[in-house]
Amino acid sequence: MSVNFMKCNSVLITGSSRGLGLQMVKHLVGISERPKKIIATARNPTSAQELQQIAKSHPEVYIVPLDVVDDASIEAAVQQVWSIVGPGGLNCLINNAGIMSISDLNSETRDRMMNTFQTNTVSPLFVTKAFLPLLRAAAGATVCDGSVMSVNRAAVINMSSLLGSVQLNQGQVADLKVYAYRVSKAGLNMVTRCLSVDLQPDGILCTVLHPGWVQTDMGGKQAPLTLEESISSLLAVVSALSEKDHGQFLDYEGKNLPW
Amino acid sequence: MSVNFMKCNSVLITGSSRGLGLQMVKHLVGISERPKKIIATARNPTSAQELQQIAKSHPEVYIVPLDVVDDASIEAAVQQVWSIVGPGGLNCLINNAGIMSISDLNSETRDRMMNTFQTNTVSPLFVTKAFLPLLRAAAGATVCDGSVMSVNRAAVINMSSLLGSVQLNQGQVADLKVYAYRVSKAGLNMVTRCLSVDLQPDGILCTVLHPGWVQTDMGGKQAPLTLEESISSLLAVVSALSEKDHGQFLDYEGKNLPW
Repeated sequence: MSVNFMKCNSVLITGSSRGLGLQMVKHLVGISERPKKIIATARNPTSAQELQQIAKSHPEVYIVPLDVVDDASIEAAVQQVWSIVGPGGLNCLINNAGIMSISDLNSETRDRMMNTFQTNTVSPLFVTKAFLPLLRAAAGATVCDGSVMSVNRAAVINMSSLLGSVQLNQGQVADLKVYAYRVSKAGLNMVTRCLSVDLQPDGILCTVLHPGWVQTDMGGKQAPLTLEESISSLLAVVSALSEKDHGQFLDYEGKNLPW
Repeated sequence: MSVNFMKCNSVLITGSSRGLGLQMVKHLVGISERPKKIIATARNPTSAQELQQIAKSHPEVYIVPLDVVDDASIEAAVQQVWSIVGPGGLNCLINNAGIMSISDLNSETRDRMMNTFQTNTVSPLFVTKAFLPLLRAAAGATVCDGSVMSVNRAAVINMSSLLGSVQLNQGQVADLKVYAYRVSKAGLNMVTRCLSVDLQPDGILCTVLHPGWVQTDMGGKQAPLTLEESISSLLAVVSALSEKDHGQFLDYEGKNLPW
């Protein structure tokens, strides 16, 4: 399975200054089958030096400031993205920005639970709500059967984690103590499922993904997957998503995960 | 299956001023196989008139003020409950207090998401954390094999909802638009699963329950189940819980639900 966004006009990736988001941008600019416009958002674009470097040599990359917990920032980003993509709208919104901290039963705090939920669960919903006019424009602009879904038409891709699976939270998977993170990702899975019901009539594909356990600041050095391995596989999955994946939870190899 | 708490010294039910919580207290005081001590908590005991009436004629009922979102209130309740139950601790904590409001994709707000999450998801975790010394005392005080679990020994029962099942959020079940509530209950399911892993060594049973769709202020008059029907069945399930139900999601008839 290869990464193919040739028929996709625009992709927006939140949290693109580092980690998985930055790697998505890097991978896309490195292939010929890339989307026509890659919108990379970051909370502080001025400090996102690697992303700035990429944008300098890749005119298809647009850096847009976006703090996902700030509704005014979201609204400003929506206006800026309209000016980038035009009336054809936005094809693929990838809600990737997220936070994680280690916190076991003893050390977990209300504040950490609330902050993690705000960033990882509530914000993807409100970013999606704000970008709906652009996604609907894209869904309507694409000449195809109304039932056909793909990232080339319109899609919301939420980056979750296997740690958000209640079912899989047992045995070795349960050893990592991240209460706030697990709960936020279980919540994001539910948000995605709710969106899949409500955006079905618009033909907007909604899928939630697990990128694997990856060598990032978040995943640590002992993780089995490199950033390149995870993201090349994940983007191949994303570019091939269809109706059957609507409202589903898939890993970076395209395998269905239990909730 | 009948309701039998004869071997259970103490049960605490949060949110007992009305709805499901009040009905649990009513049902328990009405049977001979009741727990020795029933601790009914309410945010505002003075306005919980029906509960006050019950306590007047039932000395086994203790009303304790508890606002589950307020850590100082929780700490005061813990001290008061120690004085009620003594060194034998608390056998069964039922986290029942919760809120719900109708909110579709258009009308949902960040504040409602956050408030519902605070009450329905975060608070049961922090109430449980605060009562852990009492639950551990009860688990240790019971003379039984360390692997045996039941409400007669020590248990955390979280009141969730079928609406918190991501898997079942499709078809007719998906018609009810309650984003904040669904997400909060999916989160509570994850909290329970995390607790079941971490409290296993203590022999503390952790189970999450769906009470059915019940005629309450929350469920509305069109609900198929009366309060009596739901709670008599639910309490029978609770009193019969064992190791096999640890970390599981059951409905009021004892059937396993998917996450």
